[in-house]
Amino acid sequence: MYVLRDINQELCAPAEERVSYLPHYDTIVKGGMYEYYASEGQNPLPYAFAELIDNALAATANNSGPRSIHIRMHFDDMMASRNALYVIDNGKGMTPRQLNNWAIYRLSKFIRKDKRGKVSFIEDEDAEEEKKDDLAPLSLNSDISYFGVGGKQAVFFIGNSVRMISKPKDSKDVHELTMSKEEFQMKERNQEAIYSGVIRNRKPGDFSHVPETDENVRQIIKEENDRDNFTVVEIKGINPDHITYLKQRFKEWTRQLAHIYHYYIHGPSGNVDEDKNRSTSPFKNIDIEVTMINRVHNRTYPAIHINLRDIDDDMQTQFVRSAASTFEFKAKVEGSGVVEGILRYHPFLYDRETYPSDLNDPRMEPETFDEHDYAINDRPARGRRPIFECYWNGRLIPYTFIENFDWCAEPKKTKNIPLDCYNRVSGILFTNDHFQVSTNKLTFLDLEMKLKEKNTAYSRIQNSQEKRTTIEREFLTWLKECHEQCDKQIFFSGYKGQCVRNDL
Amino acid sequence: MYVLRDINQELCAPAEERVSYLPHYDTIVKGGMYEYYASEGQNPLPYAFAELIDNALAATANNSGPRSIHIRMHFDDMMASRNALYVIDNGKGMTPRQLNNWAIYRLSKFIRKDKRGKVSFIEDEDAEEEKKDDLAPLSLNSDISYFGVGGKQAVFFIGNSVRMISKPKDSKDVHELTMSKEEFQMKERNQEAIYSGVIRNRKPGDFSHVPETDENVRQIIKEENDRDNFTVVEIKGINPDHITYLKQRFKEWTRQLAHIYHYYIHGPSGNVDEDKNRSTSPFKNIDIEVTMINRVHNRTYPAIHINLRDIDDDMQTQFVRSAASTFEFKAKVEGSGVVEGILRYHPFLYDRETYPSDLNDPRMEPETFDEHDYAINDRPARGRRPIFECYWNGRLIPYTFIENFDWCAEPKKTKNIPLDCYNRVSGILFTNDHFQVSTNKLTFLDLEMKLKEKNTAYSRIQNSQEKRTTIEREFLTWLKECHEQCDKQIFFSGYKGQCVRNDL
Ligand SMILES: Nc1ncnc2c1ncn2[C@@H]1O[C@H](COP(=O)(O)OP(=O)(O)OP(=O)(O)O)[C@@H](O)[C@H]1O
Ligand SMILES: Nc1ncnc2c1ncn2[C@@H]1O[C@H](COP(=O)(O)OP(=O)(O)OP(=O)(O)O)[C@@H](O)[C@H]1O
Ligand SMILES: [Mg+2]
Ligand SMILES: [Mg+2]
Repeated sequence: MYVLRDINQELCAPAEERVSYLPHYDTIVKGGMYEYYASEGQNPLPYAFAELIDNALAATANNSGPRSIHIRMHFDDMMASRNALYVIDNGKGMTPRQLNNWAIYRLSKFIRKDKRGKVSFIEDEDAEEEKKDDLAPLSLNSDISYFGVGGKQAVFFIGNSVRMISKPKDSKDVHELTMSKEEFQMKERNQEAIYSGVIRNRKPGDFSHVPETDENVRQIIKEENDRDNFTVVEIKGINPDHITYLKQRFKEWTRQLAHIYHYYIHGPSGNVDEDKNRSTSPFKNIDIEVTMINRVHNRTYPAIHINLRDIDDDMQTQFVRSAASTFEFKAKVEGSGVVEGILRYHPFLYDRETYPSDLNDPRMEPETFDEHDYAINDRPARGRRPIFECYWNGRLIPYTFIENFDWCAEPKKTKNIPLDCYNRVSGILFTNDHFQVSTNKLTFLDLEMKLKEKNTAYSRIQNSQEKRTTIEREFLTWLKECHEQCDKQIFFSGYKGQCVRNDL
Repeated sequence: MYVLRDINQELCAPAEERVSYLPHYDTIVKGGMYEYYASEGQNPLPYAFAELIDNALAATANNSGPRSIHIRMHFDDMMASRNALYVIDNGKGMTPRQLNNWAIYRLSKFIRKDKRGKVSFIEDEDAEEEKKDDLAPLSLNSDISYFGVGGKQAVFFIGNSVRMISKPKDSKDVHELTMSKEEFQMKERNQEAIYSGVIRNRKPGDFSHVPETDENVRQIIKEENDRDNFTVVEIKGINPDHITYLKQRFKEWTRQLAHIYHYYIHGPSGNVDEDKNRSTSPFKNIDIEVTMINRVHNRTYPAIHINLRDIDDDMQTQFVRSAASTFEFKAKVEGSGVVEGILRYHPFLYDRETYPSDLNDPRMEPETFDEHDYAINDRPARGRRPIFECYWNGRLIPYTFIENFDWCAEPKKTKNIPLDCYNRVSGILFTNDHFQVSTNKLTFLDLEMKLKEKNTAYSRIQNSQEKRTTIEREFLTWLKECHEQCDKQIFFSGYKGQCVRNDL
């Protein structure tokens, strides 16, 4: 209350004003825009797909039968409105409440659990999520949901509208929710509540709400009758640059996905088996498939289809298959947990290094040429690339590399092992969520720092046993063995002088 | 409407349910948490400070007099509730509406402008922002606001509560708005509107709403009467790890800030002047100061104070001062704009490289030792470090480096210049916002890709003139000159045999 003390007293502004500061909808729409940044010229689009695959892996974790994750793309160069991308899984689906939660930016599973703990009237439908597979080898625990942002960021990085279609097993209905940039803009114009939407509950197979022109989603809805439980993520308004990339570099990005999920697809030993006719995945029966259907000039081309398991030239497969010997170890990080590691030796064979070369890696040294411009085959093995790639809960965190550790780094003074041998070693690290990653799952926050702390204890694992010898010793012994048993160099001995072949 | 067709018909769920999916408040509170990631063991805290300095630079851009930005810290080891950090600037301040906008996550200035364009009833109070300084040298345009997230992310990375205090020139009142994790939690518990707050409008100097125990902010409010216009960002609930770091590594992080804002503080030529007694900044009169006041065991220690301009061992200063010659160039990127570049030559002098060494850089090679464990002074110049650091609108984007360009890279075959000379070159690039950065301003999104596109045209700039000779030629000529004129190697000539000094 203001009491005027003087007739000339200035009227001041109200002492307190209520204001509202609802986050702008760009929080959702642009969430991934400036986070999925290109690193060293890489296109980050496969990492957006990875977020959707992560969600599908988590959703299918407790499937009793096969786990199927299918990316389906329809591109029509004459009608952009028909372009659509689907990620379909046969996982546990979402109830309307869970679907609602899906849409809430930053509602992580940890907060949801918290809530359930305190607010008892919320049904316990997430309880099964608690079964956490802490003992999974290589932390392949299918538990890759963390921040409550991944799906939304990925969808709006890829396109500008999403339709979630989901059905849990026990539900008779299918639940649908849409979200789009256009919808947000419209609500803003009409001064409606921005973060308000509608969940449609309908019978499986009922596509009466979908316009006839929208054949793709009608087809998907028709298939619902064959599925007890599922989730479909439909993305439309796909950025045209992305479409070009997806079409032109199909082999490249599917290879990259095969690398990211290598151990989920092939199991803890990786893609050792060269038999292409295996039908089911050796590890928990996970199928990740990609199908692309192109219409060009009103002509539909045969679908391009691939099961990621059939890819045998992804980097991990190359590492697995060219390894002549492996060295397993563990790092116990004080206060954090255990990191599993594998080193692999890629020997020198006859006339060349067998260390896989990554043509997409800009650090890859170009082939050198001698004075006469003949290629000299002296490509180094690993060269300057770092030794370790790092997996988190079983999936690759693509932008974090660890150069080396003290005990496996090239020494200053060489002893009885040639220095080149140190350059023939590749490595991978496996952590669970005791180590933090950034919200876009592109980098670890503190893995390297923690691994390099004084108190971190390394030990070699052999036949599932922890060895007591120091890791330096074990590593040196292993490296020496590798060199002596696996490297095969040709020596030309008994030189007798030059001879000229007149017949050439 | 549902019409039962049969008395046994199942009652289905309502066909449509309205749901609301307000972003969770962690959007704000955890915004910066997993984005300000540590890179190569660096503590990202200085980069959070940088966001607040960015805002202050933008706010003071049109000051007629000196521009003052002051970081003030109060730490009390006996009473955590007294710990507080202030960023105070004498910029244009915020009206209540602007203060409200400050709080809206992701409300970037671009959307605000859009809005004004369309919705005419909103006052034109941001109009002056339009004056964009496109011609500023090195893109020192003080225009470092972009996404509508920086301030909030920084504040909640540093602590868990913020009080904004601001006064625009024409206002009689001071405006205050608080936001805190605790407040959010309380609103959630009480089921109140999460994103609703109160702006308090009060007379300058009036601290009647502040409890007596809160001396620090009372003191700040008392000082309001001396200031026509200002903004104060108060952060409390500071993460204890941060406090330890801020105290123990004061020199390190202030040095880092001096590096980030080097060209704002010292002007386009950098910190060439070795005269410590300059009183005003040579470039637009910008003072960035830091004061830390420690209370330990109830004893207040003398304040530690530094003006970033007085720091003369930040990396940029070292680069500027050890350069024997510079090479300016321009890169015209098709469709994007112009990048300015400077190369510097750090000569070999007598017995050592003068290329500045960064002790904090893990890529820094350790000193080597000879057989007898004597240090050998053969530290390489740049070593494997990349050549270029990159500035955006005049401030450093700390995690983006560019290794080199074709025309300045060490060649395969050496001609008439020793290879070592290529390793004596450092460089910086200056871009404006035609190139994109990530929301945390730690990395460029596409700078390297664009600079390495085929159509990017490089040319040397000499005496403000663009040279027509190819940049390769110009660079080689320059490098040769640098070597011949600046490198000074000692040769021991006229060897006459060994002699033994008996007097030693
Ligand atoms: N395919 C799916 N099947 C079932 N539930 C899903 C599926 N995709 C998402 N969800 C649910 O929606 C929630 C939000 O997904 P989103 O990817 O946006 O965030 P998140 O997975 O919780 O965290 P992160 O940011 O780590 O991805 C998930 O936690 C999960 O409960
Ligand atoms: N010190 C200040 N003085 C005046 N206005 C300020 C100040 N700090 C922030 N603001 C206003 O608040 C807005 C929001 O600040 P914030 O740093 O959160 O985002 P931004 O600067 O717009 O974008 P970015 O994410 O790039 O930092 C700014 O655009 C500016 O208008
Ligand atoms: Mg997810
Ligand atoms: Mg800002």
